[in-house]
Amino acid sequence: MNSPYPAPLAAELWRTAHALADAARPVVLRHFRQPGLDAANKDAGGGFDPVTAADHEAEAAIRAALARLRPHDAVLGEEGGASAGESGFTWVIDPVDGTRGFMSGTPTWGVLVALSDASGPLLGIIDQPYIGERFWGGLGEAWVKGPMGKAALHTRPPRPLDQATLFTTFPEIGSPAERAAFKRVAARARLTRYGNDCYAYALVAAGQIDLVIEAGLGAHDIHAPIAVIEAAGGLVTDWQGGKAHHGGQVLAAANGEIHAEAMALLQG
Amino acid sequence: MNSPYPAPLAAELWRTAHALADAARPVVLRHFRQPGLDAANKDAGGGFDPVTAADHEAEAAIRAALARLRPHDAVLGEEGGASAGESGFTWVIDPVDGTRGFMSGTPTWGVLVALSDASGPLLGIIDQPYIGERFWGGLGEAWVKGPMGKAALHTRPPRPLDQATLFTTFPEIGSPAERAAFKRVAARARLTRYGNDCYAYALVAAGQIDLVIEAGLGAHDIHAPIAVIEAAGGLVTDWQGGKAHHGGQVLAAANGEIHAEAMALLQG
Repeated sequence: MNSPYPAPLAAELWRTAHALADAARPVVLRHFRQPGLDAANKDAGGGFDPVTAADHEAEAAIRAALARLRPHDAVLGEEGGASAGESGFTWVIDPVDGTRGFMSGTPTWGVLVALSDASGPLLGIIDQPYIGERFWGGLGEAWVKGPMGKAALHTRPPRPLDQATLFTTFPEIGSPAERAAFKRVAARARLTRYGNDCYAYALVAAGQIDLVIEAGLGAHDIHAPIAVIEAAGGLVTDWQGGKAHHGGQVLAAANGEIHAEAMALLQG
Repeated sequence: MNSPYPAPLAAELWRTAHALADAARPVVLRHFRQPGLDAANKDAGGGFDPVTAADHEAEAAIRAALARLRPHDAVLGEEGGASAGESGFTWVIDPVDGTRGFMSGTPTWGVLVALSDASGPLLGIIDQPYIGERFWGGLGEAWVKGPMGKAALHTRPPRPLDQATLFTTFPEIGSPAERAAFKRVAARARLTRYGNDCYAYALVAAGQIDLVIEAGLGAHDIHAPIAVIEAAGGLVTDWQGGKAHHGGQVLAAANGEIHAEAMALLQG
């Protein structure tokens, strides 16, 4: 896949994307595993939807960097909502995806940065500041850089579902009907694992697993994963095969074959 | 807690323990996320119990280091079984705890090294080679060293279960009765998370979470976590409050209060 933009613009967009993820890193690490970390509850319905100071401060740091670098772009952030722009580009930000994992000290939450236009995500970054690991893809490139150096991202070649690995964050995924659909896929997969938040999408892009199935996502949760996985050779849709960038039900797959096998089971 | 051994012996035992974990690191990383990685199946009953080359080679590297450093100690390894010794000390080794996680590319598997005598574990290491992070405890010390430097390990002070975080690896934990017991605790906890293998014990020791509940463990799975968590101020027992180092049902807790609250629910 090549970039639809001239090389200098593509390079500027990537520089901006990395600068935004760089801006968030020290801010979130200042809070990670600190004794004072505690979560306010933003779920008015009595559930548990934690927001920490790390989320708020990291989004503020990203917005401040963006105001310097590309002030005419729009922003859609998990915490701060939507800010209009004039360029046709929107930065879609989740400053800490996997706040529950963050609050538990696990290393599988991430900072999500995506650049999108009206058609969907153009590029995305999944950054894990504690490990010092970054997955990025879009505009013709797909890379990981981390403890083992820099490498190109390629999703897995096709294998049957009974040889495949499936991830989701919560076994209590979605509504009862959504849970039943998920379980139809899980019952056929060789291995089902839980609890990795956005890191599971990075594992699809890195060719380590075959499928991620989620429900009830926000747009900020999925723009960056779509860009990274698609640039690495996979695909991400909703459970009907349509575009996934509005959130809700998501099926991320390493290749078209396993996507089709999983989607047939999700649809019962 | 102080060491029951003279300082020079305690220092030699720690040097040996770190040398064993150091020996395993490059061996397992050579295999981690590599395309050729695949799992033989050691479960004759038709289940899925993967053993990779990384497990076998890492255990061989640990045993070779031990033969040089302390040839008279006994060894109990997940892959290679028991080798007798003459010192009264046994090294209890799980070269890759969380092989499913390892095969999926997650960063929450670990190398487990423990030194035990007839009474149970004396010291333990939970090492995560990809992150470059090591948790160790016993003989009067408890530390983590990783991306954010070196710090003392302290478990969390008491908080009620409805404010607590509980981890287990699989939602399908144990037998139906064990699963029902687990669910009684999970229903009361503020947050239940899955899928972290031995990393969850490290999070208890590091004061990040309150409880880990598992069933069906082997001795090699739990010796190192017992030593690390107890040295950090927590406790690890079976579901009846007895010693846990033979494996089976395990309840790891940040403190006595949350341990008692969880154990009462496990016992119905």
